[in-house]
Amino acid sequence: MAADSQVVRQVVRRVPRWRDLAPFLRPRPFRWRSADRRLARCLSVDDLEGAARRRVPTAVWDYVYGGSDGEHAMRRNRAAFDRVELLPTAFGQVGEPEVRTSILGRPAAAPIVLAPTGYTRLSHHTGERAVAAAAAAAGLPYTLSTYATTSITDVADAAPQGRNWFQVYLMKDRAVTLDHITEAASQGYEALMLTIDTTVTGMKRKDKLNGFAIPPQLSLRTFAGMTRHPGWVSNILTTEPLRFATFPEGSHYGRWGMSNELREQAIRPSDIGWLKEHWSGPVVVKGVLSVADAVAAVDAGAEGVDATLTLLVEELRRAMCLLGTPDVAAIGPEHVRLRSA
Amino acid sequence: MAADSQVVRQVVRRVPRWRDLAPFLRPRPFRWRSADRRLARCLSVDDLEGAARRRVPTAVWDYVYGGSDGEHAMRRNRAAFDRVELLPTAFGQVGEPEVRTSILGRPAAAPIVLAPTGYTRLSHHTGERAVAAAAAAAGLPYTLSTYATTSITDVADAAPQGRNWFQVYLMKDRAVTLDHITEAASQGYEALMLTIDTTVTGMKRKDKLNGFAIPPQLSLRTFAGMTRHPGWVSNILTTEPLRFATFPEGSHYGRWGMSNELREQAIRPSDIGWLKEHWSGPVVVKGVLSVADAVAAVDAGAEGVDATLTLLVEELRRAMCLLGTPDVAAIGPEHVRLRSA
Amino acid sequence: MAADSQVVRQVVRRVPRWRDLAPFLRPRPFRWRSADRRLARCLSVDDLEGAARRRVPTAVWDYVYGGSDGEHAMRRNRAAFDRVELLPTAFGQVGEPEVRTSILGRPAAAPIVLAPTGYTRLSHHTGERAVAAAAAAAGLPYTLSTYATTSITDVADAAPQGRNWFQVYLMKDRAVTLDHITEAASQGYEALMLTIDTTVTGMKRKDKLNGFAIPPQLSLRTFAGMTRHPGWVSNILTTEPLRFATFPEGSHYGRWGMSNELREQAIRPSDIGWLKEHWSGPVVVKGVLSVADAVAAVDAGAEGVDATLTLLVEELRRAMCLLGTPDVAAIGPEHVRLRSA
Amino acid sequence: MAADSQVVRQVVRRVPRWRDLAPFLRPRPFRWRSADRRLARCLSVDDLEGAARRRVPTAVWDYVYGGSDGEHAMRRNRAAFDRVELLPTAFGQVGEPEVRTSILGRPAAAPIVLAPTGYTRLSHHTGERAVAAAAAAAGLPYTLSTYATTSITDVADAAPQGRNWFQVYLMKDRAVTLDHITEAASQGYEALMLTIDTTVTGMKRKDKLNGFAIPPQLSLRTFAGMTRHPGWVSNILTTEPLRFATFPEGSHYGRWGMSNELREQAIRPSDIGWLKEHWSGPVVVKGVLSVADAVAAVDAGAEGVDATLTLLVEELRRAMCLLGTPDVAAIGPEHVRLRSA
Repeated sequence: MAADSQVVRQVVRRVPRWRDLAPFLRPRPFRWRSADRRLARCLSVDDLEGAARRRVPTAVWDYVYGGSDGEHAMRRNRAAFDRVELLPTAFGQVGEPEVRTSILGRPAAAPIVLAPTGYTRLSHHTGERAVAAAAAAAGLPYTLSTYATTSITDVADAAPQGRNWFQVYLMKDRAVTLDHITEAASQGYEALMLTIDTTVTGMKRKDKLNGFAIPPQLSLRTFAGMTRHPGWVSNILTTEPLRFATFPEGSHYGRWGMSNELREQAIRPSDIGWLKEHWSGPVVVKGVLSVADAVAAVDAGAEGVDATLTLLVEELRRAMCLLGTPDVAAIGPEHVRLRSA
Repeated sequence: MAADSQVVRQVVRRVPRWRDLAPFLRPRPFRWRSADRRLARCLSVDDLEGAARRRVPTAVWDYVYGGSDGEHAMRRNRAAFDRVELLPTAFGQVGEPEVRTSILGRPAAAPIVLAPTGYTRLSHHTGERAVAAAAAAAGLPYTLSTYATTSITDVADAAPQGRNWFQVYLMKDRAVTLDHITEAASQGYEALMLTIDTTVTGMKRKDKLNGFAIPPQLSLRTFAGMTRHPGWVSNILTTEPLRFATFPEGSHYGRWGMSNELREQAIRPSDIGWLKEHWSGPVVVKGVLSVADAVAAVDAGAEGVDATLTLLVEELRRAMCLLGTPDVAAIGPEHVRLRSA
Repeated sequence: MAADSQVVRQVVRRVPRWRDLAPFLRPRPFRWRSADRRLARCLSVDDLEGAARRRVPTAVWDYVYGGSDGEHAMRRNRAAFDRVELLPTAFGQVGEPEVRTSILGRPAAAPIVLAPTGYTRLSHHTGERAVAAAAAAAGLPYTLSTYATTSITDVADAAPQGRNWFQVYLMKDRAVTLDHITEAASQGYEALMLTIDTTVTGMKRKDKLNGFAIPPQLSLRTFAGMTRHPGWVSNILTTEPLRFATFPEGSHYGRWGMSNELREQAIRPSDIGWLKEHWSGPVVVKGVLSVADAVAAVDAGAEGVDATLTLLVEELRRAMCLLGTPDVAAIGPEHVRLRSA
Repeated sequence: MAADSQVVRQVVRRVPRWRDLAPFLRPRPFRWRSADRRLARCLSVDDLEGAARRRVPTAVWDYVYGGSDGEHAMRRNRAAFDRVELLPTAFGQVGEPEVRTSILGRPAAAPIVLAPTGYTRLSHHTGERAVAAAAAAAGLPYTLSTYATTSITDVADAAPQGRNWFQVYLMKDRAVTLDHITEAASQGYEALMLTIDTTVTGMKRKDKLNGFAIPPQLSLRTFAGMTRHPGWVSNILTTEPLRFATFPEGSHYGRWGMSNELREQAIRPSDIGWLKEHWSGPVVVKGVLSVADAVAAVDAGAEGVDATLTLLVEELRRAMCLLGTPDVAAIGPEHVRLRSA
């Protein structure tokens, strides 16, 4: 206490000068576009999530953000990401970290591929066009969903320089799938991504209560929620109507027809071979939930697997622990191949 | 940002047309029965739980839903279920998942048996009749409790096509138990389920505070809670009085007499043999809390054991881990037999 | 739904009769003593805790219930108790569970010893007399604290049939400790309990803020809290003044003198031998926080150790796991001896 | 109950006397300095934290207390500290615990070094002078930050008897760093602490939203928050202006210039050798996040490493567990050396 008091007594006081304060009080530059103002306050993915939540009706947010049944798997996936810990090595790092990498043999700005999302124009009327263009500008591959609300050709027109991939939901009527592949090939798409874990759509409880069913039956509450977002409603009403635009207009596939009946219910590794017969580029398998499926996909000729983090990594982790290999930070397809061999 | 702005500028606007909107605005079909309206909003077991909670007085809910003492075991059981994780294999699945199985050598629509519940008519006046009939319609076995509020014969009449099982609480006076077995046999019951973990009733704190004691002494608060549910009260008052209906009317067993004094306090494996002398069908043992008890039950001739998830699986899991068998997903009676042999 | 509807249609309605309802509506017996009414609603240790909390000023409750520093150790101890899981064996149990056991070679109604608590009359004016008498009536040993507010002789008078133990805080002035031992021996006390983990009193933050310091300096807030409990204040004021009654009246030990300066700061195993020279009965060591201390206590002649659950059991558990002994349910002094041998 | 009633009946009542009450009602001594009154209520580090939070504007608190990005690492560090458990041995302890130790070969009052903190005068206008003087009075080393708001010489003047250390952020322009080292040497500083884990400043979200950016642009909200702390504002305005005072006044380093561009982005073990060429005293490396970095630092000649608790200890713990060494309580640099050898 004595030392502290001595320092306090020795403090030299002075009259404040404007030039000492000025640097702290510079006003922030004003941004004229409201979207720019909103984005200026987004400094993390959580901030972007909050901004998005405020822009769309609750029912739309529930559709985009909600998980199946009790949302246990969704929470587990998030928890798995939260458990990830990066262990940096301080010595030997270079000035500017390099995240550029190679994906399917071609350079990418980062080890990131934009995953396919259905109904994208429901979130924002510019939809798939805007996302594909942003991905192209960022140097990342973009994957268009079979259940997109913009056609394969329109996306290629919006992002002609992009690395566009097309996600295949295998249809029972393979002719429909062949049409998709043919259009993607003619529009210069780079790769096909075959989804294998959604042969039946999950029971999304919130969507059913909101009336986001197939076919849709909006509840009064959902309708009321939409009226609180007049900008969103106005954009939806004055732009092209929402439809599954990868299917021909007027077909029963094209109008909110994402039904379990039309999709192939039993996908087999041999389906990868069938795809490769009709497609000269690479095939990536998405929705791999077990090591067995990853091995089967690669054995059947897939150029890549997109494994759901939680389950696969945890299974590998357990396997590695038993084998006495504690370091499971860098698990890749080559580990899977080893087990297959 | 440049790519984004370009897409925004290219958006084509149009006048909205009614036929684009119509499919989204179809009203939901109106359901005339209020129970149907309520059930239409129940999309998960949690939803059903909430709906049930709203239909009965708090004291009844506490009885049905509450656990013993500090409810630690109840919470642990729930947590054990929440830890369960299903690891699907995407390749090779068939179109329609098949959950039909065989229980005690006969086909069942799913690997589910409806467990015995006491005082069922307290929750709803249709009680055991409704549950047994629903189980029969669903192709699942139904187990009638010794402390049911509907008689063995009345349940058989309500579900003549059902796979009806009878749960045995062994009485000190074995003649009473023999009467139960004889009536169940004459009414075509399929199996006996012997409960071994409730020789003394748990201390259910909420029931004691609510006055749901033996004999009952309703507190003012409990009584007031009932008046807020006139439909429930009306049904209770205008249908047959609540009694333990598997016992003869007027006997001291029959009227809220579920006392620890009348039940056998020390159940031994040899009691399974005694049951099998008087019963030609299968015997399932319920309330198995340790591997030792499961082994003893099977050694004594039981055709099945109903093991409490938490404790038994955790004990087996630990045992398996020590033995170097990490995969404990599929633990069944055959594992228990192996240890017994 | 069909089966359900059929059962609903078949429900037989009737006019309610009084004799069906009467058994449920018997009024609870009225208890004339308010303490009896309060206790009648206490069905668990948590209930008793809540009732006690409501009876005393906050500062008293903080003293009794609070832990040292950030209360981490207290929370860990509670969590350790919550982790305890009893695994019953259903087969072979007898009708009435038997909890009678033997403590220090003499029969006890249960494996429970009442631990010493300082300042007991602060909680209730009947203090140590009431607790000792209740323990004697229940057939359990009771331990009187060195810092009790009732004298060794007065407690013996209140519970002449009880198994009374005396807790020794070793004083620097051993003559004071010898006086305690002599008085305990002359009053028929059965055992000495030597505390070894409190040579310095923990920093109890709440007590300091409340003014429960040594010497006490009640804050205005503490004083105000006391006025809200006039019954407690009245009892404190009209009964014998609070003092450390095991010390001679008027001595500097006797009046809130529980100071670290008077107590021995360095207890050694040889102090157990010193106690046994002056005391013919058994000596139990309390506050054992490590296996090393438990082994040292037993090697030095202690008849028993009272090990703090968390630390010792966890340490043993870890040791046992490494030795390949997964079952650590029944860890007793004999395990400690084995390690000592 | 009988025993209890008997004791209650035997209670002896008396008229309260003033001399029994007096000792409890002594008023607390009044402290004239408000800082003393506030500190008198601080009995734990958490209390000090709360008192500090109330003294400064929210934006300052956010700067001092906040972590980078989602603050995951900060929370993990706190959780790691909370998991620490001290296992005391009761027997054989001495009266007064001895925490004096030796740091870098010289005696210290405790195994504690005050870590460098930037912008210290932002929290309190006496800043680094007061902290250095308090450390000297307490017999502990104090580390001055490169980004301090008091100069190397001024701190030496305020704590001439202190063990002053200087924290080095290596600059691209090594002449600037050499100036720091020369001034520290001439002012009798004892050691250099080289930080290796902050070549790029973390993204501190709260600081950016508050306008605590480089250069600062205070938001209206931040400004409003400051007006609620007139004492703090008055002290800031009437004392020497905030600047990075280890750099020459007027240089571009000196005025809120903590930019990633001026600092060395790639620190190598050889930089430790370079430091030791120009500095005759010990060098401690701070910000060691992996065992590899710790080994490299010691191999390059560092006299000590300041390892971040969470990561290093956890990594060592895992390594030790695999080696069958369960006791990881006492991990120090010598363990690291063993792995290096």
